[in-house]
Amino acid sequence: MNLKLIKLFFVFACIFTFACAEQQQQIQVKNQSADFLNGKWIDLSYDFSSDTIYWVTAKPFERETVAEGKTDKGYYYSAYNFSAAEHGGTHIDAPIHFAEGRKTVDEIPLEQLIAPAVKIDISQKASGNRDYQVSVEDLTNWESNNGQIPDGSIVLLQTGHGKFWGDKKNYLGTDRTGQEAVAELHFPGLAPEAAEWLVKNRKFKAIGIDTASIDDGQSNTFGSHVALMSENIPAFENVANLDKLPVKGANIIALPMKIKGGSGAPLRIVAFIP
Amino acid sequence: MNLKLIKLFFVFACIFTFACAEQQQQIQVKNQSADFLNGKWIDLSYDFSSDTIYWVTAKPFERETVAEGKTDKGYYYSAYNFSAAEHGGTHIDAPIHFAEGRKTVDEIPLEQLIAPAVKIDISQKASGNRDYQVSVEDLTNWESNNGQIPDGSIVLLQTGHGKFWGDKKNYLGTDRTGQEAVAELHFPGLAPEAAEWLVKNRKFKAIGIDTASIDDGQSNTFGSHVALMSENIPAFENVANLDKLPVKGANIIALPMKIKGGSGAPLRIVAFIP
Repeated sequence: MNLKLIKLFFVFACIFTFACAEQQQQIQVKNQSADFLNGKWIDLSYDFSSDTIYWVTAKPFERETVAEGKTDKGYYYSAYNFSAAEHGGTHIDAPIHFAEGRKTVDEIPLEQLIAPAVKIDISQKASGNRDYQVSVEDLTNWESNNGQIPDGSIVLLQTGHGKFWGDKKNYLGTDRTGQEAVAELHFPGLAPEAAEWLVKNRKFKAIGIDTASIDDGQSNTFGSHVALMSENIPAFENVANLDKLPVKGANIIALPMKIKGGSGAPLRIVAFIP
Repeated sequence: MNLKLIKLFFVFACIFTFACAEQQQQIQVKNQSADFLNGKWIDLSYDFSSDTIYWVTAKPFERETVAEGKTDKGYYYSAYNFSAAEHGGTHIDAPIHFAEGRKTVDEIPLEQLIAPAVKIDISQKASGNRDYQVSVEDLTNWESNNGQIPDGSIVLLQTGHGKFWGDKKNYLGTDRTGQEAVAELHFPGLAPEAAEWLVKNRKFKAIGIDTASIDDGQSNTFGSHVALMSENIPAFENVANLDKLPVKGANIIALPMKIKGGSGAPLRIVAFIP
């Protein structure tokens, strides 16, 4: 054996090992601090104002001025009070909304509100039919193309209806309010059979949609709400900007106002795309 | 040269290179999808109820029942309305709260609300003095031990006062409400000189504190609010669980209710520790 060559071999082996460790360390540092910086954040939330769309029978968002202007001490000061129903604008339905004894909004663990997303785009099918209900077939077709919905996902349904936000007549199907407007509600939702199929066959954390409700506008038994919420699955409603998300690869962080005992709450939902 | 040894050397070099690439690939996969899963989430938010502590002159949180029980169609249904001042419980002060023309709560970019945190713990100094004001010296002492506050940080001030949450008399200094209670407010805050030092000398995104206000209870000119908010720096107030955070290494995600034109809003603030 040539001693010189053996030495040379060890020198190279050491260099490789060192380079490898160095590279790993750099990646780990990046992994720890820069995760939240190296990527794009997308706001999936509409803002709250007197124009924000609420359910036709719900108390809309109101704001009153407490102070606004220069104080006698010389500094500027503004402050407001606000009031609203829990269910309006971009919001969360907590399981207790439609299922007795299930979780209130403050009881939903953070881990259930923060997860990788899958987006199921059925906007082509729903574009000509504002009563469209996402079917089991829509879900299985999506899986044929994209693989099974991964365990621990947040499922987002893009009906394309979000483009009508701000235009009550087109978004809800009516611009009237009160009990008499309920029959005029027309917007897409998730079919109850598809909600049942999801809770039976897939392990997902939460579901979201770009319409006013996870059940379609014409529903009066709210079968998808009941199926989901009986299994402690919350729903995000009036989710904005779903057209800006990829089919896979976005991470969702959905943080509701922490209302103790709440059946729902205003939701600030954002997506991070690494 | 020994041909066998040269061959042996190349085989080893190839193994090292392959192992190195494989390891990098595994880390990158982890980096893309599991960032939000491989770590611990800590909720830094108190819940909202009629017990939630509000400023002594502010409208407290109220909730009214719209529905609660089984409907005549057979399903369970619960829904509530709520109302409150913007500034109470765990909340954000938007720059417009104390600085004319500065950002309202809906205008604060997500990138300013999501960042690595540094925690400055002055609870020992503040424990015997409920009027304690965090000084420039406290900040520079912290930097002597921990290095300069990194650009782009969210700065969290732990006064230790959070342990009194729920006990109004000890948390605020008074359990009375209204204008006559203002003079009785006693809790630690950030000295205006220290706020000015921070905005002049460090590039940070936001600041948070475990008391009811970024200025101390006895302040009546609110110099820290003015200094911070004039530079479009928002403040997070009544932040919970700061004692559970490390001095460095936590990532903050602070998502306020998106109130259009709001001077502040309820805030759901969470920390992620990888």
